[in-house]
Amino acid sequence: MTHNYRITLLPGDGIGPEIMAVAVDVLKVVGKKFDIQFEFQEALIGGAAIDATGEPLPGSSLDTCRNSDAVLLAAIGGYKWDSLASHLRPEAGLLGLRAGLGLFANLRPAKILPQLIDASSLKREVVEGVDILVVRELTGGIYFGKPKGIFETETGEKRGVNTMAYTESEIERIGRVAFEAAQKRGGKLCSVDKANVLEVSQLWRDRITKLAQEYPDVELSHMYVDNAAMQLLRAPKQFDTIVTGNLFGDILSDAAAMLTGSIGMLPSASLGASNPGVFEPVHGSAPDIAGQDKANPLAQVLSAAMMLRYGLNESTAADHIEQGVLEVLQRGDRTGDIISPDMNLLGCRAMGQALIQVLEAK
Amino acid sequence: MTHNYRITLLPGDGIGPEIMAVAVDVLKVVGKKFDIQFEFQEALIGGAAIDATGEPLPGSSLDTCRNSDAVLLAAIGGYKWDSLASHLRPEAGLLGLRAGLGLFANLRPAKILPQLIDASSLKREVVEGVDILVVRELTGGIYFGKPKGIFETETGEKRGVNTMAYTESEIERIGRVAFEAAQKRGGKLCSVDKANVLEVSQLWRDRITKLAQEYPDVELSHMYVDNAAMQLLRAPKQFDTIVTGNLFGDILSDAAAMLTGSIGMLPSASLGASNPGVFEPVHGSAPDIAGQDKANPLAQVLSAAMMLRYGLNESTAADHIEQGVLEVLQRGDRTGDIISPDMNLLGCRAMGQALIQVLEAK
Ligand SMILES: [Mg+2]
Ligand SMILES: [Mg+2]
Repeated sequence: MTHNYRITLLPGDGIGPEIMAVAVDVLKVVGKKFDIQFEFQEALIGGAAIDATGEPLPGSSLDTCRNSDAVLLAAIGGYKWDSLASHLRPEAGLLGLRAGLGLFANLRPAKILPQLIDASSLKREVVEGVDILVVRELTGGIYFGKPKGIFETETGEKRGVNTMAYTESEIERIGRVAFEAAQKRGGKLCSVDKANVLEVSQLWRDRITKLAQEYPDVELSHMYVDNAAMQLLRAPKQFDTIVTGNLFGDILSDAAAMLTGSIGMLPSASLGASNPGVFEPVHGSAPDIAGQDKANPLAQVLSAAMMLRYGLNESTAADHIEQGVLEVLQRGDRTGDIISPDMNLLGCRAMGQALIQVLEAK
Repeated sequence: MTHNYRITLLPGDGIGPEIMAVAVDVLKVVGKKFDIQFEFQEALIGGAAIDATGEPLPGSSLDTCRNSDAVLLAAIGGYKWDSLASHLRPEAGLLGLRAGLGLFANLRPAKILPQLIDASSLKREVVEGVDILVVRELTGGIYFGKPKGIFETETGEKRGVNTMAYTESEIERIGRVAFEAAQKRGGKLCSVDKANVLEVSQLWRDRITKLAQEYPDVELSHMYVDNAAMQLLRAPKQFDTIVTGNLFGDILSDAAAMLTGSIGMLPSASLGASNPGVFEPVHGSAPDIAGQDKANPLAQVLSAAMMLRYGLNESTAADHIEQGVLEVLQRGDRTGDIISPDMNLLGCRAMGQALIQVLEAK
């Protein structure tokens, strides 16, 4: 039986269109192999949308996204739009997309690829085999809590205020995403908080602990955020899936990503309750090398694999792509950002062709 | 001219008394060498105070501390007191001490000792030469901000709330400590915040930036906390002195400490505006090896060196102790926690004697 999916493509700015083209080619090849039919529809976001319509996320783009099974995003932004007011900047398009689709869960894998292990600043024996998924709450916590602002105190000085807050239902819905992700992975979930000091973390820990009863196949542990930052550095292999709030997740997902030493290889996913998820590389739009066929398309390709796994429940096809990426690296093919001595330097398109050759031969 | 200082010793619990005895011997030797006269007065804190008086910080102990030039603390806590109510536990003594002395600045050095570099989980070339001081605000921010608690929403569910707040004067006083520390060190200060999202961080950044005008000899930079967590892992040598708020400092000081791979070697300082500072090792009271002459006294000794440098302005004597510690490690002397093949295993007292021998010979 053929599976049919409508995919919205948001190539965005900079190297976005180049790497998106590779990911689309890869999806077509994999679709043929696994009897998956993709209907692709493209929409504008970021600087490209600003140039065409004056807005970083035109309403029609958001409608197109809503009217699809998953959204594959490349990258947005560039020097050209940096002087605009913040609500007109490319980044506002991304925030609007997250809000418009109600994307409350950010999934950030940090997996050491054996072929790139030397890129890590950590010792080989410490990072070999690291495969972490950080599930970060994305629409609550201190980045959104109120009151917030800069106020005047009674003594006439300024006081900056932000509020870290979570309700039980906010904790529960991100918890469910994390438990379900852990079920698909190693079956271990570590919830990170600061419950020894923060009341918001006590509620977080209580709610996650209660939720664990519904997921008896997942082994739950708890860790304080300062200790988690230490343990990621000391012994990252102890982690499988991590779930945490918006701020702690912002910090820890970046630290975990840096364990790999090659940010240019990392995909991410943002999921909501009912709307399609958005899948995108962690890296930016790299305007300095845009249009030069130098970009590394593999994080975009791995984002397409995440889309298959977490957005469309097509794990076999996702596995196939991820295996293909490992094999192409094993052949020694490298783009400039991950080149090392004795490897073959390829451009963006050639890397895509190499990968497709590998995927078709598998 | 002889310098006279009155030092309050708080040996506390577990291995505390053993490691404190070594630090006192070292201070006496160094005092003789540099014409510094120490008057030591001992007071109770933690479990030892609970056993003797029923309180983790008797008023008389706080008075003794106030009535001195600096406080040298070893470690507190142990299984024995873990079942007491939280305000009667040993840790409450430490919080009471910080509050009672108005200690708003926590100084956490993370320095790679060449002799222990292999203990790091990071590659030698990444951590060689790392020498970071994290200056953490200790009495404000989200650990103390109000409102805080768990409240009921209009829809009847629970909502956990904490408040991250800083006033200009709180930022200014921690800023001054950090700029002055940077002056004594490499002359570089990196202020860490999340000013792209948090208003409290915008005020932080503005105030620190203004303050920089008074310290033209210090090179100030700013970094977002998620990037700082990445950079500590990727290229820690870029940092000299870091200043940040309570929560971010809690996370980053632990991450920076873990770069060294040997928490058992790290000292810390907590400073106030006018009261004496408190100097203590980062490690705990290790009740499992207490009284067995197995403890590593070097973090306590290095805390005494920090006391000389930051509490008493006796940098030459501090340098002397720090050099001595390096030399004793260079000889191959190690306690059990930092032992490696072909090194000499020493107990706590023997390590103290070895260090004193080195210091007297210098
Ligand atoms: Mg981040
Ligand atoms: Mg901590």
